[in-house]
Amino acid sequence: MPIRRFRLATSMLGLAVASAAWAAPLSVPHDPGNNPLDPFGPFATVYFPRNVPAPADRVGPKRWTHAYGGPNHNAAFAVSAHAPAWIRKGVSWNFPEARAWPLTDKRPFGARIYGVKEALPVQTQFYGNALGVSVVGGVVYAESDDTFAYAVNARTGRLIWRASPVGNNLMGNPLVNANRVYLSAGSVSFNFANVTLYARDPHAAGRGKDIDYNGVYCLNAHNGKLLWYFPTAGDAMPTPAYAYGSLYISTGDGNIYAISARTGHKRWVTHVGGIANMSSPAAWHHRVFVSMSVIPDLYALDARTGRVLWKASIPGAANTGMGDVSPAVRHGIVVMDAVADPRLVDGHPTLTTIVRAYNARTGKVLWTHNMGRGHKVPAFKGGVPMIIHGMVYVGSPITSDYEAINARTGHVAWTWHVPNAGPAGAGRGAPTYYQGVLYISTGPDVYALNPKTGQVLGHRHIGGRFGIVSPTIVGGTIYLGNSWDWINALPVKSVNPHFQVRP
Amino acid sequence: MPIRRFRLATSMLGLAVASAAWAAPLSVPHDPGNNPLDPFGPFATVYFPRNVPAPADRVGPKRWTHAYGGPNHNAAFAVSAHAPAWIRKGVSWNFPEARAWPLTDKRPFGARIYGVKEALPVQTQFYGNALGVSVVGGVVYAESDDTFAYAVNARTGRLIWRASPVGNNLMGNPLVNANRVYLSAGSVSFNFANVTLYARDPHAAGRGKDIDYNGVYCLNAHNGKLLWYFPTAGDAMPTPAYAYGSLYISTGDGNIYAISARTGHKRWVTHVGGIANMSSPAAWHHRVFVSMSVIPDLYALDARTGRVLWKASIPGAANTGMGDVSPAVRHGIVVMDAVADPRLVDGHPTLTTIVRAYNARTGKVLWTHNMGRGHKVPAFKGGVPMIIHGMVYVGSPITSDYEAINARTGHVAWTWHVPNAGPAGAGRGAPTYYQGVLYISTGPDVYALNPKTGQVLGHRHIGGRFGIVSPTIVGGTIYLGNSWDWINALPVKSVNPHFQVRP
Repeated sequence: MPIRRFRLATSMLGLAVASAAWAAPLSVPHDPGNNPLDPFGPFATVYFPRNVPAPADRVGPKRWTHAYGGPNHNAAFAVSAHAPAWIRKGVSWNFPEARAWPLTDKRPFGARIYGVKEALPVQTQFYGNALGVSVVGGVVYAESDDTFAYAVNARTGRLIWRASPVGNNLMGNPLVNANRVYLSAGSVSFNFANVTLYARDPHAAGRGKDIDYNGVYCLNAHNGKLLWYFPTAGDAMPTPAYAYGSLYISTGDGNIYAISARTGHKRWVTHVGGIANMSSPAAWHHRVFVSMSVIPDLYALDARTGRVLWKASIPGAANTGMGDVSPAVRHGIVVMDAVADPRLVDGHPTLTTIVRAYNARTGKVLWTHNMGRGHKVPAFKGGVPMIIHGMVYVGSPITSDYEAINARTGHVAWTWHVPNAGPAGAGRGAPTYYQGVLYISTGPDVYALNPKTGQVLGHRHIGGRFGIVSPTIVGGTIYLGNSWDWINALPVKSVNPHFQVRP
Repeated sequence: MPIRRFRLATSMLGLAVASAAWAAPLSVPHDPGNNPLDPFGPFATVYFPRNVPAPADRVGPKRWTHAYGGPNHNAAFAVSAHAPAWIRKGVSWNFPEARAWPLTDKRPFGARIYGVKEALPVQTQFYGNALGVSVVGGVVYAESDDTFAYAVNARTGRLIWRASPVGNNLMGNPLVNANRVYLSAGSVSFNFANVTLYARDPHAAGRGKDIDYNGVYCLNAHNGKLLWYFPTAGDAMPTPAYAYGSLYISTGDGNIYAISARTGHKRWVTHVGGIANMSSPAAWHHRVFVSMSVIPDLYALDARTGRVLWKASIPGAANTGMGDVSPAVRHGIVVMDAVADPRLVDGHPTLTTIVRAYNARTGKVLWTHNMGRGHKVPAFKGGVPMIIHGMVYVGSPITSDYEAINARTGHVAWTWHVPNAGPAGAGRGAPTYYQGVLYISTGPDVYALNPKTGQVLGHRHIGGRFGIVSPTIVGGTIYLGNSWDWINALPVKSVNPHFQVRP
């Protein structure tokens, strides 16, 4: 009987450690997730070799270099006709993470005190997955605000390893390269010293400073073992960008770092000011694009030296407007958006969402588009843009609309209003374009849209809530991270009945 | 072989949950620490009946009503001459909590980025135990910033249960009464909305609002099962006071609540303004004494109605000066202290520590004493006073001194400077008076002092760091909570060689 076996085993936890037991020298730096004194403790890294994918099942992308799957934010990966049937047809499972909340419960945990509208983003920020998942070689990697990172078999949904390097929220997509996983840990919070500092000088305060343990953690992708840790004083909420052997990340104390992906040593740091929120950098043609809050600017830096090549703004951008959104880059165009122009309308705070495209080489503004005015929503207020085939697809929780915009001209092809957007708005996650169809995970649902018209081709209710989540599509499966602390896997065909499984 | 048994058992974690499995209705409210979908997960409550104390070992206090053991903050409990030998002689063990850091490592986890001085209080606030432990009926109860509460056998140091109701820091002493344990969860942090609010109006901002899940959690003391949850918008960092069937707690949004200890329903709420930090209320003669930050005042409220009977201040109290310190009450006297009068000296920020005594019935000031000026220290800057036999014993990390002060006159009997205070200062925890000797846990050490002279009678090095920790003494044992995420138990005699074990 499994329960009894578990009880027998974990009753080891009842061990009292004699004084002499920890006098032996320990390797430095210690791996806080692998305490030799409590190897069965809740934060110990667990590893189940039996759940490692079989060689034939190691399908999908070979590495994961950016949040939302790449610098253009399109997390879609076709597989060959020779790939195993399960990946072509798609699989269906739901993996409960450490604090999994029932998907059938429409009310988030904090609804009683925060109200549903505020409790929805609180659950995204402090309970479950803020972003979607990374899929590499038949393994789904996820970060959760439950403090754990997960590696799960993409076919079976079974746990390969789980690690919690230290207490902090993990809000990104794990990056994966050369058998290593990179996590970014960052608290969204300010301590009281920085609150009073902000009141005196907003540019002096740092997000996450002296709160938890921020920085970039490098794990062995095979077993979750900690390899190195690059600590940062400010939050490291954004997902780094991996390129040219470096990890590029912005932090809550206004710094942008290049870190050696191999050794974890700093290559350069450029202080631009402002604070990092959830704007994950993008790398393209030896440039790094980074957006910051408080001083709401977009920066293009030389990837090799950290020198600022150009910087640009969005008119009227609100304090966290640009720092919350990740710039998308494709074909020499950078697309950003920001909530802007805060204004009271009938006594209610409102905002617009401004989308802007820049020449990636010069920073010259190509076009500017206003998605319209709507009520202010809590927490992350922007939408993550995605660029493909000369079009920009972007949502906004301010209006709960998605729009298709011509990447060269800024002309709007269509607008789609999210049904069932909920009180906190919908439109945060980037759409994913896959084999002629657009997939969007927003609110508790996943939708398939015609990218030319915005017409809904199908949808599926999953439950819980999708935060800043792009659908990650590999072959016939959509993989998702859920604010209710789940990883969801579902066949593309279950959302889009017209989807053709490759024979 | 234990390791293999554990692996076999927890490989259940690899289970992919089929869609139908969670469609069944679940009881509301859900117990987030007892997810039926992942009963073997890291946050599941574990319970080992075999480690429950034998009836003869259920010694020590019958309940725990206040932080630091009572309204006067003296956590000392003698046992009878008929008590079992182990409790009279004292026991020695160290229990590693979920993120236990090696006690031999002098450097806290975040030292590389924060520097040792700042990293010490960060480890106290975000890693291990901020306060000491509660001991009731042969069980040690502890709260940790690792998000777990623990019940450990006081004799053996073996785990009885471990529970993490939800992700948040647990910074208090568990209260225990009538087979129930009460935890208070509170984030020290501010989200960005409250940072900008504070800049406009310091009195409008709330600590902990929309950050994690604050409030009071009631567990079954026997097995750690969640019974009810009283959510609060602001932090509930302080330990409540239990009296008259109610729990009294102040919160980060300026409220003071009385909650039915049986049902978890609100009895009254009084909004006084300011924010709660670590000032645990004290109940005495149907009055509740509460101190707040930002509006640094001490309030006496009617315990039955919540009406403010009087309020009082400390001259020049710094913003978090009063809200960080718990008032001590005894024989009609309330003693408070606060860091005060911030001033630059030779370019360095300095503070004084002002101790003040009030008539508990009227709020009239009895005396005021200045402990002296010293360099500002990070985080918690006050010392928790303790009153016994007409004397006040109080420390201050500003000077790293402890003082003995006559409770009636304010006359100082002696001053003792903590050796080995470390860069963040020492003097936060209340001393404990036991059988004619004063015990102090500060820095990485425990000291025994002559309460009449301040002379050191003995000391013992434990390692790690003691935050705002009072030694909890039961019979012949000192029990402690450690910022390195341990519970330490050591014989009184190992600190004070003159200690007489009752025959």
